Amino acid sequence: MSMERTLIKDLEAHLGKIVTVMGWISVRRDQGKMVFFDLRDGSGTVQGTVLSKSPAIATAGNVSVESSISATGTVNKRPEKNITPDKQNGTIELLIDELEILNSAAVLPFELDAEVHLDTLLDYRPFTIRSERSRNIFSVQATILEAYRDALRKRRFMEFQAPALVGGDAEGGAAAFKVNYYYDSTAFLATSPQFYKEILVNAFERSFCVAKIFRGEKHATTRHLSELTQMDFEMGFIKDFRDVTRVLEDVIRDVVADVVKKHFDVFAKFGTAVPLAPDPFPLFTLTEAQKIIRSEFKRDIEDENDMSTQDERDICDFAKREHGSDFVFITGYPTKKRAFYTYENPKDAPFSTGFDLLFRGLEINSGSQRIHNYEDMLERMKSRGLDPEKFSFYLQAHKYGIPPHGGSSTGLERFTARMLELPNVKEASPFPRDLNRIDVRLSQ
Amino acid sequence: MSMERTLIKDLEAHLGKIVTVMGWISVRRDQGKMVFFDLRDGSGTVQGTVLSKSPAIATAGNVSVESSISATGTVNKRPEKNITPDKQNGTIELLIDELEILNSAAVLPFELDAEVHLDTLLDYRPFTIRSERSRNIFSVQATILEAYRDALRKRRFMEFQAPALVGGDAEGGAAAFKVNYYYDSTAFLATSPQFYKEILVNAFERSFCVAKIFRGEKHATTRHLSELTQMDFEMGFIKDFRDVTRVLEDVIRDVVADVVKKHFDVFAKFGTAVPLAPDPFPLFTLTEAQKIIRSEFKRDIEDENDMSTQDERDICDFAKREHGSDFVFITGYPTKKRAFYTYENPKDAPFSTGFDLLFRGLEINSGSQRIHNYEDMLERMKSRGLDPEKFSFYLQAHKYGIPPHGGSSTGLERFTARMLELPNVKEASPFPRDLNRIDVRLSQ
Repeated sequence: MSMERTLIKDLEAHLGKIVTVMGWISVRRDQGKMVFFDLRDGSGTVQGTVLSKSPAIATAGNVSVESSISATGTVNKRPEKNITPDKQNGTIELLIDELEILNSAAVLPFELDAEVHLDTLLDYRPFTIRSERSRNIFSVQATILEAYRDALRKRRFMEFQAPALVGGDAEGGAAAFKVNYYYDSTAFLATSPQFYKEILVNAFERSFCVAKIFRGEKHATTRHLSELTQMDFEMGFIKDFRDVTRVLEDVIRDVVADVVKKHFDVFAKFGTAVPLAPDPFPLFTLTEAQKIIRSEFKRDIEDENDMSTQDERDICDFAKREHGSDFVFITGYPTKKRAFYTYENPKDAPFSTGFDLLFRGLEINSGSQRIHNYEDMLERMKSRGLDPEKFSFYLQAHKYGIPPHGGSSTGLERFTARMLELPNVKEASPFPRDLNRIDVRLSQ
Repeated sequence: MSMERTLIKDLEAHLGKIVTVMGWISVRRDQGKMVFFDLRDGSGTVQGTVLSKSPAIATAGNVSVESSISATGTVNKRPEKNITPDKQNGTIELLIDELEILNSAAVLPFELDAEVHLDTLLDYRPFTIRSERSRNIFSVQATILEAYRDALRKRRFMEFQAPALVGGDAEGGAAAFKVNYYYDSTAFLATSPQFYKEILVNAFERSFCVAKIFRGEKHATTRHLSELTQMDFEMGFIKDFRDVTRVLEDVIRDVVADVVKKHFDVFAKFGTAVPLAPDPFPLFTLTEAQKIIRSEFKRDIEDENDMSTQDERDICDFAKREHGSDFVFITGYPTKKRAFYTYENPKDAPFSTGFDLLFRGLEINSGSQRIHNYEDMLERMKSRGLDPEKFSFYLQAHKYGIPPHGGSSTGLERFTARMLELPNVKEASPFPRDLNRIDVRLSQ
């Protein structure tokens, strides 16, 4: 067992040679006196065969599924009738002479790839995250994140670390979790990296961060998490909010292209297709969207100031059918419905520069141009009943010349979930936190 | 002002043309009836000149330093005597005809590049982060992070999102901040992503994360933060902890090489030099280090189980002098001094597989091989007075076959601080949290 390890993906290059592989036993099949394994490591899968006369046969007959093992043997061509040329290592097998159990798995709670209830999936997360479905989800998620950062860096955005601990529930609206800080003081968990990325704009012109944010609302839906990963960017010297949506669109198209390149086979496994991301994405004002919903979906929502989840699904269906796009922007929301720092162009009042990006029926991003003028910001705060004193740190940006700017934020888990059409966003978080769970279920 | 904006870095290509630049006024010099500016945007700096007869002269005479502006004018060759060929745009100037103030800066609290006390630096962080020094620090930090992730991805590590909210103060030792979670339950802020990256090893073989961690100890030193960014990796199927240190060394060398490539001029600005990162890094056991400190530094510390900050500085001086390395590994600590999950090779008892990596006098990383066997882990927990029931989620990894594995974690802010030899790690966090500060000073 002192041989150098060979990765399973490289086995074909070792045909006829003796190699050592290390991995897990996905499947064990006992056939007569022989044992067959599906072995997997981080690089792929291969069939392992233990003949009845192999010195490994005793161990092979006892080793439990999902144990980690080291196996030494010869890379052989498979018998013609067993060749599966479309599968990785489909023409070879490892004829095992030595089998060492590195760590033995106990009796499994259920088969690794069994379809189980979401609660069971999460109760056994350290086990179920090893399933092919979960590994696919989190591989795609890693690609989304990497592609998002690449796309922004290419466009001169500077990455920084936004804090998770903040001094106040800054926006006043969201339910922020309280933290017992030093000397009986109270801190809060950030509900957004907004202020910090704006501050960075004034230093670097363009900034981005991937930040954990925390929402204490008592939501129990398929689209909310209490801790989530937000991909945020902010850019200075913009003419209007369309500069922001253009960058966002370009980034999203880059991300989709990267996911398709690296995981083309994943979409079919999840019963979905490559997202349609035309240039440009369709954009409707709220008023236009409401008219479409009345004429196409026969629902009258024109007195509403916002979109319901059903409205979002409907307008997405329409955008796909009429514009060939899985993405659609909605803009023209009343300023009063948006965050206090949202810029309102006087000629568009009472409508703001805020926008949402919907993807396959769900909002995955929102953004806007922000107020940059100090006096305008003080006035807006006062009109919202916010005390500018409490924002003195943030307001240094406005006081010392921050240029016209805007940005947006994308929820990583929601983006992942819609990319693969997962029924619940919790499946797109490796360790989701909610009303009832932090790893294990909370006892109440 | 309806012209397309030109980036300052691209101006030389527009010699003789009329362009619009947008940026900030770094410097304003009034000479007779003329006004000279140093203008900067996210891409660089250029001199702007406003002649007395320019339509922009009235605005130029009033605009305050650090205001954001839009300037339209002609890209001119500078008079011969004013050429500074070694500086960006040193041969050109922008002869300004139109000057629009995008956002006017109030009177500055002090000059942007003034050297100020750390407390003042942080009180005015939204302002001081715009200084050249701060921009250099955070540009280097962004490169460190990107290079670290690249280096690991290249070596088959899978990125994932570790949670910041955890259910318990898992390791029992660190001072974890408490969070008021739902229904009067208590959660904690993570002190490490350790359990999660191990769980991911059992799915992906190799995992990494960049995670916020939180330490509630009442430290007031130059090297502690209450919220910090940890760069963590974990790898399966290792032979021993040297597999981990080898990957770590390679990653560190890649990171240093990338920083040097992108920021070569930064080291001199900070009065330091490119870090020496030979292959391999020197490695001493604690016992060896203690002997060196006695013979070379005349201090007897051989009864100690750990290194003091002075010991760390001394052994780093020695490693640099004798081995030409700014990095040095210390290993062979007693197992009882290390985290409970640290593996102890029976033949090395009572010494563990734990290691620290010191960089220019400071520990920036620690790691080890971990216990993978379920029974061994139960035994270790019991010997430490820990209740395995409370770890049932984590223990699913051990129960279901996690291979021999190990990993390490690097503090991003410490690594950045030592890279540039900053006197205080707080300077390497854009928004540091400590005993007395969350953005603004806490009132007690």
